[in-house]
Amino acid sequence: MGLTVAEKILERHLVKGSLRRGEPIAIRIDQTLTQDATGTMAYLEFEAIGLDRVRTELSVSYVDHNLLQTDFRNADDHRFLQTVAARYGIWFSRPGNGICHQVHLERFARPGKTLLGSDSHTPTAGGCGMIAIGAGGLDVAMAMAGEPFHLIMPRIVGVYLTGKLPPWVSARDVALWLLRRLTVKGGLGKILEYCGPGVKELSVPDRATIANLGTEMGATTSVFPSDEVTRAWLYAQGREGDFEEILPDEGAHYDEVIELDLSTLEPLAACPSSPDNVKPVAEIAGRPVAQVIIGSCANSSLRDLLVVAEVLSRHPVHRDTCLEINPGSLQVVENLEALSAFRKLVHGGARIHQCGCLGCIGMGQAPPTEAISLRTFTRNFPGRSGTRPDYVYLVSPETAVASAVRGVITDPRELGEYPEIRLPERFILNDTLLVPPLPEEEARKVEIIRGPNIVPLPKFDPLPEDLEGEILLKVGDNITTDHIMPAGAKILPLRSNLPAISEYVFSAVDPEFSQKALALKERGRAVVILGGENYGQGSSREHAALAPRYLGVRLKIAKSFARIHKANLINFGILPAVLANPADYERLSAGDRVRLKGIREALSQGATEVPLEVEGKGEIPLRLDLTERDREIILAGGLLNVVKK
Amino acid sequence: MGLTVAEKILERHLVKGSLRRGEPIAIRIDQTLTQDATGTMAYLEFEAIGLDRVRTELSVSYVDHNLLQTDFRNADDHRFLQTVAARYGIWFSRPGNGICHQVHLERFARPGKTLLGSDSHTPTAGGCGMIAIGAGGLDVAMAMAGEPFHLIMPRIVGVYLTGKLPPWVSARDVALWLLRRLTVKGGLGKILEYCGPGVKELSVPDRATIANLGTEMGATTSVFPSDEVTRAWLYAQGREGDFEEILPDEGAHYDEVIELDLSTLEPLAACPSSPDNVKPVAEIAGRPVAQVIIGSCANSSLRDLLVVAEVLSRHPVHRDTCLEINPGSLQVVENLEALSAFRKLVHGGARIHQCGCLGCIGMGQAPPTEAISLRTFTRNFPGRSGTRPDYVYLVSPETAVASAVRGVITDPRELGEYPEIRLPERFILNDTLLVPPLPEEEARKVEIIRGPNIVPLPKFDPLPEDLEGEILLKVGDNITTDHIMPAGAKILPLRSNLPAISEYVFSAVDPEFSQKALALKERGRAVVILGGENYGQGSSREHAALAPRYLGVRLKIAKSFARIHKANLINFGILPAVLANPADYERLSAGDRVRLKGIREALSQGATEVPLEVEGKGEIPLRLDLTERDREIILAGGLLNVVKK
Repeated sequence: MGLTVAEKILERHLVKGSLRRGEPIAIRIDQTLTQDATGTMAYLEFEAIGLDRVRTELSVSYVDHNLLQTDFRNADDHRFLQTVAARYGIWFSRPGNGICHQVHLERFARPGKTLLGSDSHTPTAGGCGMIAIGAGGLDVAMAMAGEPFHLIMPRIVGVYLTGKLPPWVSARDVALWLLRRLTVKGGLGKILEYCGPGVKELSVPDRATIANLGTEMGATTSVFPSDEVTRAWLYAQGREGDFEEILPDEGAHYDEVIELDLSTLEPLAACPSSPDNVKPVAEIAGRPVAQVIIGSCANSSLRDLLVVAEVLSRHPVHRDTCLEINPGSLQVVENLEALSAFRKLVHGGARIHQCGCLGCIGMGQAPPTEAISLRTFTRNFPGRSGTRPDYVYLVSPETAVASAVRGVITDPRELGEYPEIRLPERFILNDTLLVPPLPEEEARKVEIIRGPNIVPLPKFDPLPEDLEGEILLKVGDNITTDHIMPAGAKILPLRSNLPAISEYVFSAVDPEFSQKALALKERGRAVVILGGENYGQGSSREHAALAPRYLGVRLKIAKSFARIHKANLINFGILPAVLANPADYERLSAGDRVRLKGIREALSQGATEVPLEVEGKGEIPLRLDLTERDREIILAGGLLNVVKK
Repeated sequence: MGLTVAEKILERHLVKGSLRRGEPIAIRIDQTLTQDATGTMAYLEFEAIGLDRVRTELSVSYVDHNLLQTDFRNADDHRFLQTVAARYGIWFSRPGNGICHQVHLERFARPGKTLLGSDSHTPTAGGCGMIAIGAGGLDVAMAMAGEPFHLIMPRIVGVYLTGKLPPWVSARDVALWLLRRLTVKGGLGKILEYCGPGVKELSVPDRATIANLGTEMGATTSVFPSDEVTRAWLYAQGREGDFEEILPDEGAHYDEVIELDLSTLEPLAACPSSPDNVKPVAEIAGRPVAQVIIGSCANSSLRDLLVVAEVLSRHPVHRDTCLEINPGSLQVVENLEALSAFRKLVHGGARIHQCGCLGCIGMGQAPPTEAISLRTFTRNFPGRSGTRPDYVYLVSPETAVASAVRGVITDPRELGEYPEIRLPERFILNDTLLVPPLPEEEARKVEIIRGPNIVPLPKFDPLPEDLEGEILLKVGDNITTDHIMPAGAKILPLRSNLPAISEYVFSAVDPEFSQKALALKERGRAVVILGGENYGQGSSREHAALAPRYLGVRLKIAKSFARIHKANLINFGILPAVLANPADYERLSAGDRVRLKGIREALSQGATEVPLEVEGKGEIPLRLDLTERDREIILAGGLLNVVKK
């Protein structure tokens, strides 16, 4: 039987297990990436492991999230990261060089390889025929230490593409179509693999956009074949030597197939406030738009901005609408300039920012009160924009710029002829802000600069014999890591300071959560959280596990967990337990006193179900979907405790 | 006897008084400008006056200070300002279009005219042969209402320039040379008028840089003649019709003359932490530099960035130094692009930001802890950068970029041949983000959009018969408006919300100041502040008077006051009193209970000295340097109370 692209790459990297779906496997990691918001902690963890140099083929530390520098903390983080990179043999992409996924696609993504990144949109590199997975910082630190990455072998969904995109419809609309169909949890436990004759109609950056947004469906990753289009991309980047053809075998078997004729697509929009609340743009057209932002790891490539420039050269930005552009990389900017497109953006009235994530991660660019903001970003979770309530729509660059010039939500097909975009055969390369690793000798001499906000990790206790505690918070379905550990301009600078950032855990849900949790912890009682379906979706931030753990959370109960968050909970010694009967969710409330008697022993013996004793309500059965390794980690109180043993 | 340029322009605009030095005069204002940080309040005040449309020849509302948008407040302010502008017949320069002074110089500055701006660097336009003065927002609101501007006729200092700048030395070094000589208070009560054969060697943007930095010397304003160089500038801007020659008469009399041979200058730097702590760059060379920022209303013109681009095309930015560029305007960016210089910046590794003030006003760009930052900004007051303590040096673009490529403070003359810069004869114009005023009919229909952070002004009481209170704070010399009312990313968004921003008054000096002041106010006692020399230098922000007034401050005593701040105190009904014997400063302390008995009557009767009764210490004589109009305003409790009568 033939293999799919995903299977071929995974098979080469298997260190443990087989390709049997649902089985725990471990894979060798060739490349890692971090960004600054997750990276400071990941490198503190790497330092705690105690090695002298990374053991991957390639590791890159990007600075793209926290670029505002409203005080010393961002700037100190950047210096810490730069000196850590120099010390341990890591590439360093300096602030302003661009968004990690865009730069990685340009300079490092390589067909057939594996990439583990401490950012949930790491699958973007799947557009270049590699298996790229988002994970918590500690998992990435382990991979840098040469350890394999552990996961459950996902099911493989074939997305069979035919036809060709119509004018004014682009890769974003493909992803939105899938989001509508699959919802934000439809990809859980799955790899989305794109196949069929339609694939060759999509450029590598288009594929990257689609792979990127697989994250919003909860997919483990997304992957495209590596074909002639991939070869052309690598050639254009001066990296033809990195090319390897990887196509699915004849008769490759997919666990499930979704068919999509690209020519039937129309412009779509994810309406407030979830990436899967998708409607045709035509249905919502005419609403006034205050702000339009084009950027993010999903849609800030040269192609995207060339389309925007062409539209702006025909019509300037509307008087009542602010158009902001966050280019994906310095390379994008330099090529825009060389193609005489940059001046069209400037002349058309775009407000062009430095290269980076900016508003997509809530670092500035908040929209006005009660006004619509159209963005080509990845997520529109409530309040993530920095304004509350917000009205954020996620759209293609085509829809975004059409709306910016008209001042109202506009179906871009109304603009007439679709500009013909030609990407250069060879891009101008700009690696000025990309610092290569130092040779080993020199690296040893580097002194790591630590500002006062960079605080070492505390030690965590092993799991107790009995877990006694209280449900401090009950939340609903699709709780995101933004709910658990908010980001934004105020909180992101605290990412390397655990005691400080922990004060903001669940702060938008219950401003007193952290105080209450610490009080409970001081009384020697475990803090317990109760969630619904798909608990912990969104960003990969391990702080959403680490900070609750710091506050004394030892048990999270939910109907189901998002993959990365569950892995992060385990890594920091929090037990993720699933309600055996989802209906029991209704029986439990905040304030319930609960107990897991003999939980250490149950975990050690491989129990898959344990009774939760609830004071005054009897017993509720909890399911433990945990591998042997997961159990070992939780018993030890977290992965770092295991490694140190 | 012949007239100077300043006298010629003032004479044309005199509404009250004569050119006799030291006499109160009033002048007609042709143009006004506001920026967003002072503008929201200025327009709330204009609304309080109750007119239907501005009565100036030209009024412009710029958005350049608060561009970070970390929450809804910045964005709401922008919408408020845009709708106010549309409502009242005001030009609106949209966020991202550029820094007010740069854009004004390009598009509106006009020889022979008067400009009043609610920004202390308004004198920048003096580079184009006009009298441009910074003032508090209320003064600007009054000017928009057609009222004259009141000031004391300044002394006129002739700065007689000969020779020509040597390679690698530029306009900034002229200003730094003067700052070293005059210090931050040497320009108090003076107009600096540039004359002599050296003037024609300086372009209009160079002149603007020099005029801009006169503010740091405390000058009322600075002015250059309008000559053939001015004509060429206006032609390049497509505004040759705005030209008028204005030269000093033969035998014009200056109250004082400073001679400077430009050819003797060398690169200079203002060292931490005052603009007048000036040393030759050669003396401080070799210190490692973490950050270099090129921008601000003083140095972000096309010429400045062309020099930077040429240097970067020879040497990329140093690996350990971050180079950030804040272009002055969209026009600058578009012309850089057209001259193929933009790509040199990008290829050289510059981090290019949107057009605006950004880090110069503490909105981001904070340097790392204990690291040197070189900036072409206007001020390096302690902590203004957002990092505390900070090590900020103010230098020319030449010194800045030389240091950025070497990684250490570098005398630019070490870089070899000085690039030859040619400015275009005709600039490409980009007015896309400059919205013209609406016709009167249409303007009347505009609805002003007010976000929840835009709070109307409270009413203030008239001055009581006796002023009884307590010295709550005693501070030293050269206290800036940054000390009194800090700016920065956290506080600037509160500029349209008086109760909220008042919590930060003197917060860096005494975090409990506002609470203590309100407590005193509630007990019916006046809050008194004691300062040293040059109290209230720096930014024109009227919030440094308005917010203390809100907290109950009714009397400020100092050895001397900075001009704009003194005017702002009067405008909001705070009595500015000067110690008749400066030595009495030592006798007074925080905590002293003080009384000005019969102060209403004393003011009404024109008393120039009043005794301050100090509990347990006897009487201390205070001098009142106040015009009749000043007295009327203070008695009424502020200018708005006068106008409403």
